[in-house]
Amino acid sequence: MSGRRHSMTTTQKHRVVVVGGGFAGLQVVRGLRREPVEVTLIDRQNFTLFQPLVYQVATGALSPAEVAVPQRSLLRRQSNARVLLAEVVGFDLDARQVSIEPRAGDPRRSTVDYDTLVVAGGAHYSYFGHEEWQAHAPELKSLDGALEIRSRILSAFEAAELTDDDRLRQEWLTFVVVGGGPTGVEMAGQIAELGHDALRRDFRRVDTDRTQVLLVEASNRLLPSFPPTLSAKAKRALEQLGVTPLVGHTVVDVDDTGVAIRRPDAANERVGTRTAVWAAGVAASDLAGELAHEARLDTDRAGRIPVQPDLTLCSHPEVFAIGDMARVQAAGADAPLPGLAPVAIQEGRYVARAIRARLAHRRPRPFRYRDKGNLATIGRSRAVAEIKGVKLAGFVAWTIWLLVHVFYLAGFQNRLLVVLRWTASFLTRGRGARLIVPTQAASLPAQVTLERRDAA
Amino acid sequence: MSGRRHSMTTTQKHRVVVVGGGFAGLQVVRGLRREPVEVTLIDRQNFTLFQPLVYQVATGALSPAEVAVPQRSLLRRQSNARVLLAEVVGFDLDARQVSIEPRAGDPRRSTVDYDTLVVAGGAHYSYFGHEEWQAHAPELKSLDGALEIRSRILSAFEAAELTDDDRLRQEWLTFVVVGGGPTGVEMAGQIAELGHDALRRDFRRVDTDRTQVLLVEASNRLLPSFPPTLSAKAKRALEQLGVTPLVGHTVVDVDDTGVAIRRPDAANERVGTRTAVWAAGVAASDLAGELAHEARLDTDRAGRIPVQPDLTLCSHPEVFAIGDMARVQAAGADAPLPGLAPVAIQEGRYVARAIRARLAHRRPRPFRYRDKGNLATIGRSRAVAEIKGVKLAGFVAWTIWLLVHVFYLAGFQNRLLVVLRWTASFLTRGRGARLIVPTQAASLPAQVTLERRDAA
Repeated sequence: MSGRRHSMTTTQKHRVVVVGGGFAGLQVVRGLRREPVEVTLIDRQNFTLFQPLVYQVATGALSPAEVAVPQRSLLRRQSNARVLLAEVVGFDLDARQVSIEPRAGDPRRSTVDYDTLVVAGGAHYSYFGHEEWQAHAPELKSLDGALEIRSRILSAFEAAELTDDDRLRQEWLTFVVVGGGPTGVEMAGQIAELGHDALRRDFRRVDTDRTQVLLVEASNRLLPSFPPTLSAKAKRALEQLGVTPLVGHTVVDVDDTGVAIRRPDAANERVGTRTAVWAAGVAASDLAGELAHEARLDTDRAGRIPVQPDLTLCSHPEVFAIGDMARVQAAGADAPLPGLAPVAIQEGRYVARAIRARLAHRRPRPFRYRDKGNLATIGRSRAVAEIKGVKLAGFVAWTIWLLVHVFYLAGFQNRLLVVLRWTASFLTRGRGARLIVPTQAASLPAQVTLERRDAA
Repeated sequence: MSGRRHSMTTTQKHRVVVVGGGFAGLQVVRGLRREPVEVTLIDRQNFTLFQPLVYQVATGALSPAEVAVPQRSLLRRQSNARVLLAEVVGFDLDARQVSIEPRAGDPRRSTVDYDTLVVAGGAHYSYFGHEEWQAHAPELKSLDGALEIRSRILSAFEAAELTDDDRLRQEWLTFVVVGGGPTGVEMAGQIAELGHDALRRDFRRVDTDRTQVLLVEASNRLLPSFPPTLSAKAKRALEQLGVTPLVGHTVVDVDDTGVAIRRPDAANERVGTRTAVWAAGVAASDLAGELAHEARLDTDRAGRIPVQPDLTLCSHPEVFAIGDMARVQAAGADAPLPGLAPVAIQEGRYVARAIRARLAHRRPRPFRYRDKGNLATIGRSRAVAEIKGVKLAGFVAWTIWLLVHVFYLAGFQNRLLVVLRWTASFLTRGRGARLIVPTQAASLPAQVTLERRDAA
């Protein structure tokens, strides 16, 4: 560790360092905009990703810039905040320092001092110890992954058009989506719509209506976080779109020509496919493990760090851990809070309030999550929603889904564009951003790609 | 070469094969939409790039999908046309066959038969025999190149923010654009605007107003294809934006820490910079050389293939060569036609008319280029224009530039979005698509990247 230190000024303002500029971290920074503090946001990417819409990039419905906004733009007017494009490589909780490695230019490490630390490093999909599967089934969480998937899906239709071999053509027209949560359900629905609708008139030789989409979910129903009746509705809606949901099925192998699946009767089956998409499992950012080790805590099976009711670490009240990498046990609840955008947002807002309270020498109340509902879209004009116990499906749910997502879109200047593009896409049944552009993800070893995703 | 052949039907319709789906090739295909022919468009990319606006992707003002439109979308309603995503690897003019290698799926080669062949493989920037410079100074012509440049420019400002070393900071804030044609002029102006205007409030430590942009042009004035008075106006406008034009200067070396430049007094000077952009020299697609070799013709210094007044090859009236890879000598003119979008578009339209005439057993008249004018933009609300001898500069020229570019934008569904984003960008002085996303270009050897660009 070099002796260089990043400090903004020499005044004695309270220094808040926020690691990770996702939904959780960004809310902390924004929530402190009127306080007499110095906020430093450290992220390894220069943008905040609107993760609930990343799957739309993977099908070419949206462009990357419509779901990702540079943090500097968002924080431009917040003069008490600065942004460092850097990777956090270590914590020293005793010295109250974070070690960073710049992501641009001179790669020498340096340290950043804090009075309060907030770590929100996020999570990524896990390959259940089979990282080698990632090369064949890219993850649908990062922008890189989505662009890689977009290239693969579009190239698959091109390959189907070019081949003379019927068996091979069907393999190119077969898509396997692993993971039946909201992202997997949304993705499977969109691929089916591409083949059965948007792309139908684009090809001459191949009949894209023969597109087959398999959605593999290990548990016994889709959307396990929703009530069973909505799972059943989602399943029916997907089937109508041409998706084959395989619940109770587990992926046991993935390679470049197919996926091996274990059926509920424990027999294995091989599906010939050239395009698999991964949206299953959850593993917290490595930062959770590093922070836990430094604080002498144990992470849970998903690698999440346990926190107190006020989202701080036990014995380190000046350190908060929030978002998908934190294990937050709501009072009286059986399970920890799920890794959802609304949870991360509420945690971030709470931490900003807690810091404000402390600066005013007040004691913050424990964090309480207000469940505002659960939404998943299935395709053009279909969705399922559960809002305060009320279950909705179909067009009404889809309208709510649309309004909520447009409302929450991080980049305010993009809202109108997203609405316009969606309107155009809805009316023309087309897809605007169907470009096959080579991405770096394809050529990187799995480990590097995995690493790169963490702090988004 | 395998025995497989791609043919659409078994009828005896006249088969037109168009190689390259840029401005020229696309006009041929579109111009034949009502004819009783079978058209096959072969391209190694799945999109047509609106090249005059690619530099706007490099500065984050536009998203890739706003300057690139999938050919399948454009040709969706043209039932006599099909698209093959493949690379042309050879011509057999005697057998009237094109050899192709699919760009997706099974890479086995096959052949496509033609009655009329149109080759429009385009051109790329040349590094004057120093392909090793490309790693340090990516080209500003392909979408890949533009995305790589975008990442580098944005990362340079991030690196300047992160460093404590004043000398290094100024190197990160120094940008060298090589080539003083319209693309280089537009790019230099936009980088200066980024530093002096759009990004100013985004950073805390670094003063982006210290951004230095050098524009290196070997000939004795900028925009050599424009009248000297407009070159002088462009130079003044650039200087006002903070660009330093270096006319009569030649780049003699490029590496990762700087560019060596030969001054008009023949002395060499080294400029410390971490970000160089290449927009100089012209080299025709390798397809021009292959076609020339097969037809026993010699290419010119820029690698272009010479064509007859009707744009066919000498001794091969069934083969047309058009666009940037063809050397078209207008009757009575000293120099061949320049590699501009309007030239390519008019050549493409002419070839469609010529094919129609031949099918009607009429003899097509020779090609005549109608010079409708020359436009280059310099920054927000400045441009130079020469339209039928009338010279314009400033806001009027810029308005014409804007209208012409919006009008010609290939993807009609994108027009409204581009106008909206430009309006937003103009009003807010912001940049919408400022994302640092790793591209494959960075990790590819120069040769592969060069190759990939040809048939765009």
